[in-house]
Amino acid sequence: MSTAELVFAHRHLLGIAELDAMDIGQILDLGDTFLAIGERAIKKVPTLRGRTVLNVFLEASTRTRVSFEIAGKRMSADTINISGSGSSTQKGETLLDTARNLMAMNPDVIVLRHSAAGAAAYVARHVNAAVINAGDGTHEHPTQALLDCATIRHHKGRVAGLEVAIVGDIAHSRVARSDVLALCKLGARVRLCAPATLMPRDIDAIGGDDTRGRVSVHHRLESALEGADVVMMLRIQNERMGAEAPRFANPREYARYFGLSQRTLAYTADDAIVMHPGPINRGVEMMPEVADGERSVILDQVTYGVAVRMAVLYLLGGGTRSDSAAA
Amino acid sequence: MSTAELVFAHRHLLGIAELDAMDIGQILDLGDTFLAIGERAIKKVPTLRGRTVLNVFLEASTRTRVSFEIAGKRMSADTINISGSGSSTQKGETLLDTARNLMAMNPDVIVLRHSAAGAAAYVARHVNAAVINAGDGTHEHPTQALLDCATIRHHKGRVAGLEVAIVGDIAHSRVARSDVLALCKLGARVRLCAPATLMPRDIDAIGGDDTRGRVSVHHRLESALEGADVVMMLRIQNERMGAEAPRFANPREYARYFGLSQRTLAYTADDAIVMHPGPINRGVEMMPEVADGERSVILDQVTYGVAVRMAVLYLLGGGTRSDSAAA
Amino acid sequence: MSTAELVFAHRHLLGIAELDAMDIGQILDLGDTFLAIGERAIKKVPTLRGRTVLNVFLEASTRTRVSFEIAGKRMSADTINISGSGSSTQKGETLLDTARNLMAMNPDVIVLRHSAAGAAAYVARHVNAAVINAGDGTHEHPTQALLDCATIRHHKGRVAGLEVAIVGDIAHSRVARSDVLALCKLGARVRLCAPATLMPRDIDAIGGDDTRGRVSVHHRLESALEGADVVMMLRIQNERMGAEAPRFANPREYARYFGLSQRTLAYTADDAIVMHPGPINRGVEMMPEVADGERSVILDQVTYGVAVRMAVLYLLGGGTRSDSAAA
Repeated sequence: MSTAELVFAHRHLLGIAELDAMDIGQILDLGDTFLAIGERAIKKVPTLRGRTVLNVFLEASTRTRVSFEIAGKRMSADTINISGSGSSTQKGETLLDTARNLMAMNPDVIVLRHSAAGAAAYVARHVNAAVINAGDGTHEHPTQALLDCATIRHHKGRVAGLEVAIVGDIAHSRVARSDVLALCKLGARVRLCAPATLMPRDIDAIGGDDTRGRVSVHHRLESALEGADVVMMLRIQNERMGAEAPRFANPREYARYFGLSQRTLAYTADDAIVMHPGPINRGVEMMPEVADGERSVILDQVTYGVAVRMAVLYLLGGGTRSDSAAA
Repeated sequence: MSTAELVFAHRHLLGIAELDAMDIGQILDLGDTFLAIGERAIKKVPTLRGRTVLNVFLEASTRTRVSFEIAGKRMSADTINISGSGSSTQKGETLLDTARNLMAMNPDVIVLRHSAAGAAAYVARHVNAAVINAGDGTHEHPTQALLDCATIRHHKGRVAGLEVAIVGDIAHSRVARSDVLALCKLGARVRLCAPATLMPRDIDAIGGDDTRGRVSVHHRLESALEGADVVMMLRIQNERMGAEAPRFANPREYARYFGLSQRTLAYTADDAIVMHPGPINRGVEMMPEVADGERSVILDQVTYGVAVRMAVLYLLGGGTRSDSAAA
Repeated sequence: MSTAELVFAHRHLLGIAELDAMDIGQILDLGDTFLAIGERAIKKVPTLRGRTVLNVFLEASTRTRVSFEIAGKRMSADTINISGSGSSTQKGETLLDTARNLMAMNPDVIVLRHSAAGAAAYVARHVNAAVINAGDGTHEHPTQALLDCATIRHHKGRVAGLEVAIVGDIAHSRVARSDVLALCKLGARVRLCAPATLMPRDIDAIGGDDTRGRVSVHHRLESALEGADVVMMLRIQNERMGAEAPRFANPREYARYFGLSQRTLAYTADDAIVMHPGPINRGVEMMPEVADGERSVILDQVTYGVAVRMAVLYLLGGGTRSDSAAA
């Protein structure tokens, strides 16, 4: 397999919004290929040897950082972690100066997590390296959507035609936004379910023609789950809502109306799968018996996370561009 | 040397309690072999190339983490560090969910430090990777005991038959527990010495037949040191006792009665060696002239730490098991 | 290129004070060679394979740490990061004990940043590894001066005979001290410019014969810039002056009298270049239009930072010494 055979036309991965179904399919196909590497004794290929991957996590996230770091190392890239604490941004440096400084060290790929929507796109406009958005505020988290689609395709054989329910704090969730876009582009229908206070307006229009008519809004869990093939439960991000007025009375009440239990799971199709981006608030958005039940594919999502990130690193860090990115 | 020739029958290293004298001897022999690698210009062997080692330190410890990281890198493993701060555990995730998530990324070895006794064993029951306990609460710290035994064996030629005094906060010390077990299994006799408030009850029974009759309890330093071949001084862990009632009047008083000085060292055998797991509180549990004196083998302990951890990684990360640990 | 051909006679890089013009020239020449590696697709050479480089940053600095980490990885060294938080120094360990403990793990190179002047030299006296000073209090930051000289030489073709203005908080700046020494040794003349409260006494004597008569002191920006070939603006380190009495009224007033703007830049030579060690306080010591202007070579400094650090690692980590550093 060489990059010459591939037709991935993007320099960066900033969001699902910019990808079409063929782009997504190509990443998923590559991800399936790379999945096998994680199953070997020697989990390493020389593909990105001598490439420099910067994991810039200005917002804390061990889970996603570790997934990218493992993906990079299994591709033989040199991976360097940069976190928010102690970094120049804390000394008042602008994001643009940070990005330009990092670029001056000739990285091939910058993986960026940042609390501001649009941060990755902004950086991408100013650097030569490939930029991978690892979460930008409440905007997008494209590799999460890609690993979700890879997991669904693995278990269901397809994404097109499926009924997918996404339940939880839709308003604050970049995961929900990226998933809606990816699922609709691949031909699924999406049911969004949240209390009214956690549901943004016009969510079905976020993808234009891609999403219009494919997204339905629900405020009762039972109606969202009715016959669904896939249920994605989102994390209630208490830490994100700290300073604001509470959007729901308390976790117990949330669990009662919107938590996925054996009782509510019964509304779904008999072969429905259950997903969650993690970390789970057990007993809040999902009961333990569901998280650990036979329908749960939550850990497969994590496994596909590494594989899909290897695929993205392969497509974007693949060596020809960096030749012209010399200082 | 191939794993086929080895008879190490354990999947994990959770504590010295589970090892027998032959297991320990095998690790020490391997450690001696790996010691030479650290003395070369090119300190690297390809043994664990393509294996993934996760250093999960949910309780802070630069020293032990660095030792494991160097050991892993000199074996050519991909090593990934995960600390408590910013990790999913801080977002309320359970240890089991954290462990399962890490496992889904297909690591070969999980090195775990955790503040709760039994944490490593708990994780080991739920993952396919080899788990190495790098300290679990006040329970065990097996690689510390292994490096201590390796250091003693190097300087004394044997462990069996030696009189070893361990002095300090026995009650809170996982190091003391692991050392007592390892030393007794290898045939040494152990004298434990502490103020009554820092000495647990029935400590001589912790290893059952292995330790019974081999452990004596002392409350005066001089009696513990009388003719001893090895003196291990434990760190007074002020930070660990913060919230509790103080167990001794103050550091100066502690030093007066239990600190190792030239004067008290004179009670030991003429060729006794002095050890400490570090970091040292100079002037409290040990006077500088002893720490830096000719009897001190404290830095050899650190050197053996890397070698013994290479040995453990070799025995547990050695490639056959991970073939069946695919997702 | 082999180390045998090189005549670099130093075991450590503790400060520019100990180097002569030939030493500096050799590092700059090597840096030019290594610059090309960062421009390749495969940015990696096997030179330091199997060498262990410890990046010990007991004072936070993402930027310099990342530069050293990239430099080490591109030379194929095993790099291990150690930061102040969670480290043994926080448990009350002395710097000497920390250094000896690190040394016992057989590193080839210790890169040390520490808040105390003289820390690197102190460690170097007690360990076998090569020590690279990555900033010690207000004393020196030699690799910064080396990358500055490399950048100047690249753009100006030479350093000798140039007029270099260094503007800002001279009193607290290890960068200024190292730059003054390096520039004078290479034959430049240096103009130091600061408010009287930020200018140390007898600064022109810091390098003895090297600097005497080559350094002039200015308290007005215009006089310092008049006809200068190079302008180095220092960062106003608000965080460093926190507990002290303020040395200037406020950032706006500082910018008015000592900030580099298009207006004040006009005093310099027509082909003057503008430098800054970063991170920039835009609008304080430097206006955005200057930082981003055509005279700015600030990002080239960053690029040369990696190249010069590769050169230093090459000269000091080059393999023969570590053979005799066995435990």
